[in-house]
Amino acid sequence: MDGLTKIDDLGQPRVVIVGGGFGGLALAQSLAKVPVQVVLIDKHNYHAFQPLLYQVATAGLAPDNIVAPFRKVLGKQKNFYFRLAEVQAIDATAQVVETTIGLLRYDYLVLATGATSNFFGDKMMQEYAVTLKSVSDALELRNTLLANFEQALQLGDQEQLNSLLDFVIVGGGPTGVEMAGALSELRANVFPQDYRELDLKQMDIHLVQSGPVLLKGMSAEASAQSLADLQAMGVQVWLNARVKSYDGYTATLNTGEKLVTRTLIWAAGVTGAPVAGLSAECLGPGNRYLVDEHNRVMGYDNVFALGDIALMKAAAYPDGHPQVAQPAIQQGRLLGANLAHLLAGQLMQPFEYSDKGSIATIGRNRAVADLKLFGREYHLGGFPAWVAWSLVHVLALVGYRSRIGVAFTWAWNYWSQDKGLRYIIGQVKSEPVVDAGATAGKAIS
Amino acid sequence: MDGLTKIDDLGQPRVVIVGGGFGGLALAQSLAKVPVQVVLIDKHNYHAFQPLLYQVATAGLAPDNIVAPFRKVLGKQKNFYFRLAEVQAIDATAQVVETTIGLLRYDYLVLATGATSNFFGDKMMQEYAVTLKSVSDALELRNTLLANFEQALQLGDQEQLNSLLDFVIVGGGPTGVEMAGALSELRANVFPQDYRELDLKQMDIHLVQSGPVLLKGMSAEASAQSLADLQAMGVQVWLNARVKSYDGYTATLNTGEKLVTRTLIWAAGVTGAPVAGLSAECLGPGNRYLVDEHNRVMGYDNVFALGDIALMKAAAYPDGHPQVAQPAIQQGRLLGANLAHLLAGQLMQPFEYSDKGSIATIGRNRAVADLKLFGREYHLGGFPAWVAWSLVHVLALVGYRSRIGVAFTWAWNYWSQDKGLRYIIGQVKSEPVVDAGATAGKAIS
Repeated sequence: MDGLTKIDDLGQPRVVIVGGGFGGLALAQSLAKVPVQVVLIDKHNYHAFQPLLYQVATAGLAPDNIVAPFRKVLGKQKNFYFRLAEVQAIDATAQVVETTIGLLRYDYLVLATGATSNFFGDKMMQEYAVTLKSVSDALELRNTLLANFEQALQLGDQEQLNSLLDFVIVGGGPTGVEMAGALSELRANVFPQDYRELDLKQMDIHLVQSGPVLLKGMSAEASAQSLADLQAMGVQVWLNARVKSYDGYTATLNTGEKLVTRTLIWAAGVTGAPVAGLSAECLGPGNRYLVDEHNRVMGYDNVFALGDIALMKAAAYPDGHPQVAQPAIQQGRLLGANLAHLLAGQLMQPFEYSDKGSIATIGRNRAVADLKLFGREYHLGGFPAWVAWSLVHVLALVGYRSRIGVAFTWAWNYWSQDKGLRYIIGQVKSEPVVDAGATAGKAIS
Repeated sequence: MDGLTKIDDLGQPRVVIVGGGFGGLALAQSLAKVPVQVVLIDKHNYHAFQPLLYQVATAGLAPDNIVAPFRKVLGKQKNFYFRLAEVQAIDATAQVVETTIGLLRYDYLVLATGATSNFFGDKMMQEYAVTLKSVSDALELRNTLLANFEQALQLGDQEQLNSLLDFVIVGGGPTGVEMAGALSELRANVFPQDYRELDLKQMDIHLVQSGPVLLKGMSAEASAQSLADLQAMGVQVWLNARVKSYDGYTATLNTGEKLVTRTLIWAAGVTGAPVAGLSAECLGPGNRYLVDEHNRVMGYDNVFALGDIALMKAAAYPDGHPQVAQPAIQQGRLLGANLAHLLAGQLMQPFEYSDKGSIATIGRNRAVADLKLFGREYHLGGFPAWVAWSLVHVLALVGYRSRIGVAFTWAWNYWSQDKGLRYIIGQVKSEPVVDAGATAGKAIS
């Protein structure tokens, strides 16, 4: 027999979770002692720690440091089942999800599919820009970056050289800021030795932000500090600017400025990644499912959504919670408790987001942190903020092995001021700049 | 200007090394203080530690643990230059190599391109078998292995299930033995928890060896011990057997036996990987360049070859040295010294291989070692041999970071009896077994 007949029927209610990011994983773990069967479906067989993808992209961490295979993390949880598949549609009437490996019946469905890059309809941007939403993205960017530098060695033409050495990052939120800082450190500490033959003063890093400040979700102090830090590190920050168009070589700003680059990194917005099959009315702004205070999708009894894909209107968050890790994790944990209540015929608890603050890192010894403790807000910068950032991220990683691995790698990078993972493994998708056929047989060195 | 005009002309003799494996890397390093310009060309931007590729394939190590980027390893060496390229042909008259990034003039050329898998003319085998000669190979095998197990969960048909769970390894040398042992440990220690729904007693591991003993290059004690160990670990060893044909699903032995598997790993022989352009007479058996005792290619003044690609007839090695790491490293070091002699008008020294012994590991606490010390031969097995194997390999790795990383990972694996790197990152090349279109809309679970 085909399909998913191999999933044991435990005779218990089956909770199907679509997506094993921060929210889905937290929910799966919180259901450990609840009398249900938990089936997690994800298109990858691992959970990826998204906040550190930019470090994989800039050769500061290995992918293995920041991924945790679901079967390893939750293998000991007796009611946990995993299926490697993509969910293509939901049939809410039949209470079935259609996946790439067959149909799966559910008693409770939880959508935790997260968010994807938002190109605001710009198809050329979508084709040519690089994103940082997955491990594959990060590895591809790392490969491209290194391969571009290898190619740059062959070029004499100044503009073509710059196209390979320069970077444009679009989006002044944490991802953009962190990426800009990391590239700046490569330029200062690592590339001069690796590429002695290149004039690295030629390598420009541009950060383009549509609004007047960087890190607009953080305090004014954090915004100002991060701007000062990046400028001190030689990043050209363009505020109140947008990239009007990008064709893979030239990025044109709305100010008229043209920046030549083959590597434009898009970190300027996300949109929800919903699954087909539910009614159109339950999708709100940003392609997020409208949910009530119990994360129930509007109009459905047993379909829930949490994390980036969910939009829960609350007094303090009229447009939904920020699309970051904390709300997803907190919602996941509460929903696990609430499903237990539901099954026991008890009342469910409403979700209330407890914002512990934000941290963003810029580089070695430079970070900004807004911490909310005991009802007060603290603003940190520099080394203390960087230590706080490192601690928070190491502790948040899944699995002791990852924590030790990352802590070790960071300590190594810190002391050696190096980022050692400069390998091109796998296909490099970028087109070769120089036509090999044209050079072969020509200039002899 | 195009081509390689960016390579500085130092006014010194230029030594071009093709291939950065054990031999090429050792040579490049040994030329640090010699008044030449060293240009290393490799199709990857890193050196890969081949003996541990099988551990990447079986999720025991991360690729980053066993690769070392050339620019990082040799970046500080002032006369060292690196070019990421493939060498397509040699023009020995003009003293030029043709590469994918243009032409490069040489004063001395050293071929260190290594060996590639030898399929003995069997084209179907070449298409369907999996090899373990590169990091990409290892990652692809890891992906395939994990993806097959995920797929196996969907199947009821016994034969199809076995095709995904069973492995056939062809070749009873160190690679085959180590692979079989590692798979056996996955079956015993890791998969039962990851894949609780599968009956892992169904997972068969076959090792097919054409001769009467395993590890035929080692002592009789080592051969016997490894056979006993593998059988104790549940590996089915077929001696005096060959795989007559393999079509991607069924492997037919010359004994008539048929083994169903989608994963046949070919570790049964290597052949040299020469570069076009030199005379046919200088290529000997196994596609290896015939060289004299100074590693000079027969018939050429300034073209040398070392390592797997070289065949140096010596009294003790009438068919050339074994194609393993030690001879390559020793030849690389001597050739560096000899080139210095050559430039100074002094005599070159003849190469004499100093065989320090062999080690192969089978699994946790099980290994076999033949050590040649102080003119005597020692045979170790079990735990002492495993410790020796671990030490030798950790010390042989390039770079402190890799050594610490591997030592840590092995210690972790040892104590937890786990192999934690079970991620599918990247494309899985194997065809899906079950047609998703056929199952969708059919059986509901």
